[in-house]
Amino acid sequence: MGAVPHVSFLTDYGLADGFVAACHGVLLRRGVSALDITHLIDPGDVRRGAAVLAQTVPYLPVQVHLAVVDPGVGTSRRGVVLVTPGGMLVGPDNGLLAPAAAVLGGVRAAMALAASPGAPATFHGRDVFAPAAAELAAGAAPETLGEPVDPTGLVALPPGLARVSAAGAPQPAPGRLEAPGSQAPCLEAEVVLVDRFGNVQLAATGGLLADVGLVPGRRAEVRTGPDDAPLLIPVGVTFGSVGPGELVLYVDSAGMAAFAVRDGEAAIRLGLVPGDVVTLRAS
Amino acid sequence: MGAVPHVSFLTDYGLADGFVAACHGVLLRRGVSALDITHLIDPGDVRRGAAVLAQTVPYLPVQVHLAVVDPGVGTSRRGVVLVTPGGMLVGPDNGLLAPAAAVLGGVRAAMALAASPGAPATFHGRDVFAPAAAELAAGAAPETLGEPVDPTGLVALPPGLARVSAAGAPQPAPGRLEAPGSQAPCLEAEVVLVDRFGNVQLAATGGLLADVGLVPGRRAEVRTGPDDAPLLIPVGVTFGSVGPGELVLYVDSAGMAAFAVRDGEAAIRLGLVPGDVVTLRAS
Amino acid sequence: MGAVPHVSFLTDYGLADGFVAACHGVLLRRGVSALDITHLIDPGDVRRGAAVLAQTVPYLPVQVHLAVVDPGVGTSRRGVVLVTPGGMLVGPDNGLLAPAAAVLGGVRAAMALAASPGAPATFHGRDVFAPAAAELAAGAAPETLGEPVDPTGLVALPPGLARVSAAGAPQPAPGRLEAPGSQAPCLEAEVVLVDRFGNVQLAATGGLLADVGLVPGRRAEVRTGPDDAPLLIPVGVTFGSVGPGELVLYVDSAGMAAFAVRDGEAAIRLGLVPGDVVTLRAS
Repeated sequence: MGAVPHVSFLTDYGLADGFVAACHGVLLRRGVSALDITHLIDPGDVRRGAAVLAQTVPYLPVQVHLAVVDPGVGTSRRGVVLVTPGGMLVGPDNGLLAPAAAVLGGVRAAMALAASPGAPATFHGRDVFAPAAAELAAGAAPETLGEPVDPTGLVALPPGLARVSAAGAPQPAPGRLEAPGSQAPCLEAEVVLVDRFGNVQLAATGGLLADVGLVPGRRAEVRTGPDDAPLLIPVGVTFGSVGPGELVLYVDSAGMAAFAVRDGEAAIRLGLVPGDVVTLRAS
Repeated sequence: MGAVPHVSFLTDYGLADGFVAACHGVLLRRGVSALDITHLIDPGDVRRGAAVLAQTVPYLPVQVHLAVVDPGVGTSRRGVVLVTPGGMLVGPDNGLLAPAAAVLGGVRAAMALAASPGAPATFHGRDVFAPAAAELAAGAAPETLGEPVDPTGLVALPPGLARVSAAGAPQPAPGRLEAPGSQAPCLEAEVVLVDRFGNVQLAATGGLLADVGLVPGRRAEVRTGPDDAPLLIPVGVTFGSVGPGELVLYVDSAGMAAFAVRDGEAAIRLGLVPGDVVTLRAS
Repeated sequence: MGAVPHVSFLTDYGLADGFVAACHGVLLRRGVSALDITHLIDPGDVRRGAAVLAQTVPYLPVQVHLAVVDPGVGTSRRGVVLVTPGGMLVGPDNGLLAPAAAVLGGVRAAMALAASPGAPATFHGRDVFAPAAAELAAGAAPETLGEPVDPTGLVALPPGLARVSAAGAPQPAPGRLEAPGSQAPCLEAEVVLVDRFGNVQLAATGGLLADVGLVPGRRAEVRTGPDDAPLLIPVGVTFGSVGPGELVLYVDSAGMAAFAVRDGEAAIRLGLVPGDVVTLRAS
């Protein structure tokens, strides 16, 4: 990593204003470089920010992660530092940091950050969070940055739905009878992320997929809505498991169940966006 | 800041071609790193480039700022180095650098940069400006890079309108009588920037806003066009001063008067774009 | 360049997910920094990726170039390291690297990279290519990273069309007679790139343009399709050679023939996209 400490950095600030650079400047003033994750989280989309952060931090050799997706800036929401075995997280206490903290080993301690009196009230990334992250990366102890708070009182987003039901479709369409032999366990899973390539990541891990018998070589019966006819989608190891233009269900590079279309966009093909729920079972 | 000198960098080059990287390469060849401000200024939008540059440089711990929004590349416009008490600016002499130079303490000296004979005529960022910025960051004296020119002859953009009139609306709509008691001074201000969050920044400072009595707790009577009915917008410290979906007038993180909508986009709500003029007075 | 080795980096990963950062993290873990070229190549657009890479590498003072535009990830396409006199290239063997390798002096040796058994099959940028590039930048010999393969067996894209015919239009429109005296040699050239400014770069070098008599001061008779009436476009040194809003044919900053509109977008004016073929001759 060399002599220059790095802080990872994720926001919804976009790349067309000077917001990200002002924060980079605050870091650089303390001799700290930024490792940008993304600044193109949709404004205020805390859930997407949390998911991208959690899936990226395992690959970043840094001890401090700065993340600001903060629709509540200027309200009474707290700013926090979370201390985990795998590093520290700095940002608003609105659920953004929690999944990454879990990935890094869980919150061992939390500190509340206070804005300086008289500082502008609307750009905490520059005026509160980046200075705190720079201090931490430069070696400050987290206890020096704020008052300790109870980690169990931190704001958490409800986790994405990922549930196995014993057998049968959980919600058969009205007036539609299930075939009597349809006893395979069923997985309900929420769409978490759609990426640049149109791949659709579910809240279910690859392990859960295997638990319901959906392993490479099998086919999944997939419903994207209660009234939709089921689709039969092969389970593969990768996009290359199917022909061009075909759908595949696989375990993605973050270890999660996902749909892809080889040389295409699964999100468009399936009409899925984050928050939708799909049901899957082995066919 | 470590041992590596940094140059800040702002352009309209976009992020989809190799233009920015070629300039980064020219800097790196001299051991200089770039601190990118933005490269998503709309092509040729000198006014926006100038505003973003001026509002960001105070937060950047660098001595050299490289900025290229240059619709006149390949014409007879000059390239310049501007020397200020707070650092040096390198770019075209088309008004882009002037507001940042003012923020950095004013132009003390200016040098005209010449393109090398035989260099391509269309990519001065790579072939003229980045090499000059790299030389400066590596320690060269600005006098060695070009002929001195008279700072009073530099191109300047007209400043954004921000004017207080003593009393009454400056231009009452035709046929509309002002109430006799309407004696509060009136502020006319041009829209300078709309940011990613739809916040609308005006050319008026927070001080000017206070001068006309628009301080937190008051309400502003705002006209977005001569024929538009006035809106009553509360003056707050931040978006959190109002409820979700409500408009607020506040002093933004650059110290300028601005409109925001909490959890929304003021530019869309008010139908304002840069260059529009609004009138405000205390109600 | 300092003590920190840099690797240039080009992908189609976009900037809204954590993909680029995960690769940056893999590099940084080995003490290597990324010099990003672009990550906004359209998904799977190997041809554009190859062109941007080849035109940018001459300006980058790095010894290792990492490029991943890889619609075939997860299929049997190989990953490779290409060794050239001007540096090394790491990425998929799908034609992406070949033009840059030619610019850097030609392929002297090639090694096939193998994915680690058990590694995820869909994110070779993070799991195969970035680790290999980091090793090379940190000083590893390319022979240690994979088995040598025959450079003549590498995948190559067909080069963009750029052809001079002796005289006359190559394909006169049906039923349209050429004027008897029309003996100027004719250049057929494919559109390679359209950049952010709408400039249209052709596959023909500036030298080829001169070969058919198209030098500054002349005018080009340009056909953008077999049935289109020819346009007369002046040949200039730069956009500044023509008035605002006017078309110009010039040699661009990469040394290639290109169309521009001063203060406008030639691609829109001419209705051209990459892959289109235009014919030009001196008028």
